[in-house]
Amino acid sequence: MRQASTRPAIAITTGEPAGIGPEISIRAAWAMRAQVNCVLLGDAAFLALTASLIDPDIKLAALSVQALRNGGLPQFGPARICVIDVPLGAHVVPGVLDPANGRAVLATLDLAVEGARAGWFDAMVTAPLQKSTINDAGVAFSGHTEYLAEQTGTAQVVMMLAGETAPDTPDNYALRVALATTHLPLKDVSAAITRAGLGRVIDIIDHDLKTKFGMAAPRILVTGLNPHAGENGYLGREEIDTITPALEAARARGIDARGPYPADTLFQPKYLLDADCVLAMYHDQGLPVLKYATFGRGVNITLGLPLIRTSVDHGTALDLAGAGLGQADCGSMEQAIRTALQMVDAQRASQL
Amino acid sequence: MRQASTRPAIAITTGEPAGIGPEISIRAAWAMRAQVNCVLLGDAAFLALTASLIDPDIKLAALSVQALRNGGLPQFGPARICVIDVPLGAHVVPGVLDPANGRAVLATLDLAVEGARAGWFDAMVTAPLQKSTINDAGVAFSGHTEYLAEQTGTAQVVMMLAGETAPDTPDNYALRVALATTHLPLKDVSAAITRAGLGRVIDIIDHDLKTKFGMAAPRILVTGLNPHAGENGYLGREEIDTITPALEAARARGIDARGPYPADTLFQPKYLLDADCVLAMYHDQGLPVLKYATFGRGVNITLGLPLIRTSVDHGTALDLAGAGLGQADCGSMEQAIRTALQMVDAQRASQL
Repeated sequence: MRQASTRPAIAITTGEPAGIGPEISIRAAWAMRAQVNCVLLGDAAFLALTASLIDPDIKLAALSVQALRNGGLPQFGPARICVIDVPLGAHVVPGVLDPANGRAVLATLDLAVEGARAGWFDAMVTAPLQKSTINDAGVAFSGHTEYLAEQTGTAQVVMMLAGETAPDTPDNYALRVALATTHLPLKDVSAAITRAGLGRVIDIIDHDLKTKFGMAAPRILVTGLNPHAGENGYLGREEIDTITPALEAARARGIDARGPYPADTLFQPKYLLDADCVLAMYHDQGLPVLKYATFGRGVNITLGLPLIRTSVDHGTALDLAGAGLGQADCGSMEQAIRTALQMVDAQRASQL
Repeated sequence: MRQASTRPAIAITTGEPAGIGPEISIRAAWAMRAQVNCVLLGDAAFLALTASLIDPDIKLAALSVQALRNGGLPQFGPARICVIDVPLGAHVVPGVLDPANGRAVLATLDLAVEGARAGWFDAMVTAPLQKSTINDAGVAFSGHTEYLAEQTGTAQVVMMLAGETAPDTPDNYALRVALATTHLPLKDVSAAITRAGLGRVIDIIDHDLKTKFGMAAPRILVTGLNPHAGENGYLGREEIDTITPALEAARARGIDARGPYPADTLFQPKYLLDADCVLAMYHDQGLPVLKYATFGRGVNITLGLPLIRTSVDHGTALDLAGAGLGQADCGSMEQAIRTALQMVDAQRASQL
């Protein structure tokens, strides 16, 4: 066990209050309190009630945002979980969305960013939120990743999902899949991939795998855009005109980026075991296999931010939340916290 | 063991002679001779030499195409493997392509189709060929599937890959992924998907799962085209304008076709165990996860043909072939034969 004073402080935004976010945040924070000082950002009264219903032994200790701003994060031992109180606008009915709570959810993200900058938090982990609730509250919002990029003035971020393929077996290895494009209509993908843009994506992956994952020389395998990576131009020219030149330029900058490889045959241990990350060109090329391979253990990581941010790889599960406590699995949340912790350690080591 | 006289006769086109096709065809045919009367289509002298180098115990018996046409396929017991002699144009150097052999490879496909129509063969299984060799021999050729469709006068076929996820474990199940589009540049995929075309694809899948797989009411899960299946139109409108109407029309025809579902979360046992086939919209949306999940055990099946055709899911592996016999794994070929056999049995049962 780490000493209490050396436990990293990780802010957990508890997400949409009507979903499973609050429950999985509390469960995971409590389960991992020996290793990590999880700080829950959310409505203190609501979280206290939820915690007492999950397990009366769970002890929370609430702090106001003002107190945090005035005095920073106090030393907390593992006996209690710290909550920073971000009051909700309306009473929560599990499973039922209420736009009156949209702005409070957003306020927890703002506070996590503020706290990461101020040095109160070493990393942030986000529970799932409901985009529509925030939009219905009158705030244009297209997703955690985009919002955090905006709030931190980051021009480009990269979405990477990571997980273990077969934990506790000899076949286990870490699979990481980053995306060159994310939430775009499929027909817009080809035009969105440019040499310069792809170069920036590769630079971000290389940089963050070095500084936040402790890899000395990250090995990046890159897919083609078209079936069979274009088959020498017979099935599309983006590999020849865009991807191959971008990879050549990246290698000239000293980055170990290889490809483009056909996506359908790249996901085999013989290739993946010699790589640190696969860069897929678009969402449904990379994520079905990643989620299949790491099911329930996947973690979403935003590369390129000036802070460490991980997230669960599932949604708010309103149906489960509406069915009462005890239905949700906090495995992905624990994995997101564990990954953030490893990143904090790797970042500290790289800065020594 | 089946009685020799009831063993289905399955034509195996032995593929590119400089690749691993001849070796895996011979090995698999010999290993499975108790269950199936595999008939190898290829150069008799070359196959006899190859067989003798693999294992002197393997017995082949050659027949000319003329003899086959005159007398049909003679009764063969499991002591020997029948070869129909389709002479090559040039001496084979393993690992080295020679366009002089392109037309002979094509002739084995023509013979398999002729034999399926004539009733000599119950099914055909294709070893990998090299498209470029056939094109270099002066014949425009874009692939097995397209060629077989043409030769049989079939307007539309559907490519489906199938395999077992975890053989010999409690987690095993059959995964089948069919594709709405196959070898198209990614930017052309959206325009290639129409209501009518998608309807025909669904009809073919439904029909063939009934008649060639013995399923009374096939359950087909259909992906969306865009990330998150378009997220209610925010990430593309093809789901709303094309896919959903096509599925509604299919259901009105009595077909159990559901969706569109987000591709990244569809590949989970909780969905797949209640389905017979996933229909993905394009190559790299469906095949990376299929190949990952069924690695080395995948079989390519062409639906919609007036005959049963399966294939291995790998290529000619010229490098392996060039390194000498004994390097190649015939697992996928055996699986392709086994699948063809099951389809023959199911088709016979459906015709009773």
